[in-house]
Amino acid sequence: MHDDVNDILTRIKQTRPLILNLTNYVSMEFIANGLLSLGASPIMTESVEELDELVSIAQTLVINIGTLDDAFIKRANKACQLANELGKPIILDPVGAGASHYRTRTCLDLLETFEVAIIRGNASEIMALAGFCHETKGVDSNAATSVAIESAQLLSEKYCATVAISGETDAVINNKTVQLLTHGSPLMPMITGSGCLLTAVVAAFSAVHPHHHDATSAAIFFYGICGEIAARHTTSPGSFKTHFIDALSLLLQSDPKNA
Amino acid sequence: MHDDVNDILTRIKQTRPLILNLTNYVSMEFIANGLLSLGASPIMTESVEELDELVSIAQTLVINIGTLDDAFIKRANKACQLANELGKPIILDPVGAGASHYRTRTCLDLLETFEVAIIRGNASEIMALAGFCHETKGVDSNAATSVAIESAQLLSEKYCATVAISGETDAVINNKTVQLLTHGSPLMPMITGSGCLLTAVVAAFSAVHPHHHDATSAAIFFYGICGEIAARHTTSPGSFKTHFIDALSLLLQSDPKNA
Amino acid sequence: MHDDVNDILTRIKQTRPLILNLTNYVSMEFIANGLLSLGASPIMTESVEELDELVSIAQTLVINIGTLDDAFIKRANKACQLANELGKPIILDPVGAGASHYRTRTCLDLLETFEVAIIRGNASEIMALAGFCHETKGVDSNAATSVAIESAQLLSEKYCATVAISGETDAVINNKTVQLLTHGSPLMPMITGSGCLLTAVVAAFSAVHPHHHDATSAAIFFYGICGEIAARHTTSPGSFKTHFIDALSLLLQSDPKNA
Repeated sequence: MHDDVNDILTRIKQTRPLILNLTNYVSMEFIANGLLSLGASPIMTESVEELDELVSIAQTLVINIGTLDDAFIKRANKACQLANELGKPIILDPVGAGASHYRTRTCLDLLETFEVAIIRGNASEIMALAGFCHETKGVDSNAATSVAIESAQLLSEKYCATVAISGETDAVINNKTVQLLTHGSPLMPMITGSGCLLTAVVAAFSAVHPHHHDATSAAIFFYGICGEIAARHTTSPGSFKTHFIDALSLLLQSDPKNA
Repeated sequence: MHDDVNDILTRIKQTRPLILNLTNYVSMEFIANGLLSLGASPIMTESVEELDELVSIAQTLVINIGTLDDAFIKRANKACQLANELGKPIILDPVGAGASHYRTRTCLDLLETFEVAIIRGNASEIMALAGFCHETKGVDSNAATSVAIESAQLLSEKYCATVAISGETDAVINNKTVQLLTHGSPLMPMITGSGCLLTAVVAAFSAVHPHHHDATSAAIFFYGICGEIAARHTTSPGSFKTHFIDALSLLLQSDPKNA
Repeated sequence: MHDDVNDILTRIKQTRPLILNLTNYVSMEFIANGLLSLGASPIMTESVEELDELVSIAQTLVINIGTLDDAFIKRANKACQLANELGKPIILDPVGAGASHYRTRTCLDLLETFEVAIIRGNASEIMALAGFCHETKGVDSNAATSVAIESAQLLSEKYCATVAISGETDAVINNKTVQLLTHGSPLMPMITGSGCLLTAVVAAFSAVHPHHHDATSAAIFFYGICGEIAARHTTSPGSFKTHFIDALSLLLQSDPKNA
């Protein structure tokens, strides 16, 4: 895994892929700094007027619904349409799906209308999209279970998408295939936008690697290792955030202690 | 005070209350990270469509007018109406009241229409709401005086609210009762959103403690101690911000040197 | 240079000029924290309703088009009109000009309608405003060339503005005069908003110094030194950001090793 990840990281640093983010106001800066640390080029937009030009120069499109409103939905639809026309992969982060019907409905509308390459969410969000009733507590629910994996399989088959579930154990699902990954740190969910930035990192990996499932697995593996590296330096969330951004700039060491 | 504060902090970490923030774009991420460090669950929204569901799952509602516009005011009104109907406490941060009539008027409209549990601002903002003319310099004015306390008493009586004034000395006012608190660090006003995050921390304390005045005092006391802890590590504002977020994750030590 | 810069820094700390920012959502918090560290007072707004009051209490106005939409453009026009009427300097950051016609057109419309004191961008943005075709890669393009300087000279003459180009070598252009500055660190472009904050720092320097060209040069010189100071502490982007904000709070040491 290390060599594959380092190949991808090197390609990101060399080609600096442009990741177009239609994303939320809470973690915009964190996402931009994480992508820059990785070596990618983030761009954000708030206007439908410039989407045709920005989608055409971008390598991948991230749709993150964390602070959606009707204007956001309009932009997301236009951007997804352009991305599909131009063959640019769409990565969807269904932030808070299940917390409101507005969020769940918006994600399902996008999935039913456009080809989405990858969906990355936590267990409760993925379950909400698959129609499983689940008591959600907003945006940080975390219970990864067999029901969540079953939900991801349903979504993956129905929408021909790779689906990733983040939590204590991460899972990457492609149709019936399930890959589990267990890296990371309990400090990660204490940083707002840690899921959102992972989605953007998946997008950066997908920008330089043609297979969505492998790109997603490699991104989640690398992200978890970055969490472990940061957690070696601190047990506090403020400092962890700084060390985590630092870690994203690194290549993995061949030393198996880092794996 | 230490035992009471630690009881509240422990209850926050155990129950992870959901704090719904209608707040400004400048300090959204800082507020979210501060609440997560404390153990609470932040959620932000930009859409009136999902307010009924989000208010019903939230424990308290924060209205922070820092980057208000007409759409924000519409959302704030709807959220306050729902919070009052469902008996969820509203915490108001009148950011920049006095700097523009638009800000002052928006706060007064909310106070006159809804039951607001707690108002937390700096001296110039509280004075502006009480109708005292005062030369404001935007959002960081700081002169706490007897006029400010008199203003807070007027507001507290008129709107049946607990009123907190932040500054070198903090004051918590309930009708005629005035409690002064003197913890903190001169580095705190050098961090944008340090007042906004305090308001959100007051909301988290109020989510697990039924008495608004006591919850507010405990939150302000704890927040000041966190400032002192962070200031032991650095004299520079960038590092202070990191250490301050770290400190919010702690329980108070019984050691009286921390008090 | 050191004494002049320290004079300006001291005046900022003493008078705490209010910098009104119509700016983007990605780097709003970073800009606010940078200005606070410097000793200036940032204020942000999202509403046309309060512009007359806020422009009248502000010392300078920053227009940063990083996440523009039609409502932003309306606010920017109103704010520029008021700033011109009241003689407050306007500092323009043409974020992403060239990446979309919408961005390029918006900047040119502002420049053709209002007196803009200072334009601060990277090479590809400045070239796009001058009408040079250039393949841009979004918001972080960086190639400073003789074409960029020629572009800046054209803009400076046409719009009677000081023009600053940021990059490995910075350039400050006033009509035909070109001043080159070579301080900084390769870590600076790895921090989102490092250009945006520089624009705001230029605005703070201009708030206390009447000559736009000298204020701009002094700000860029100081900003580059801050980058070098931060780079002495770390080689990683997350930590660099923290140390950079710390450095902005300092006065320059007379020790020539800092120059």
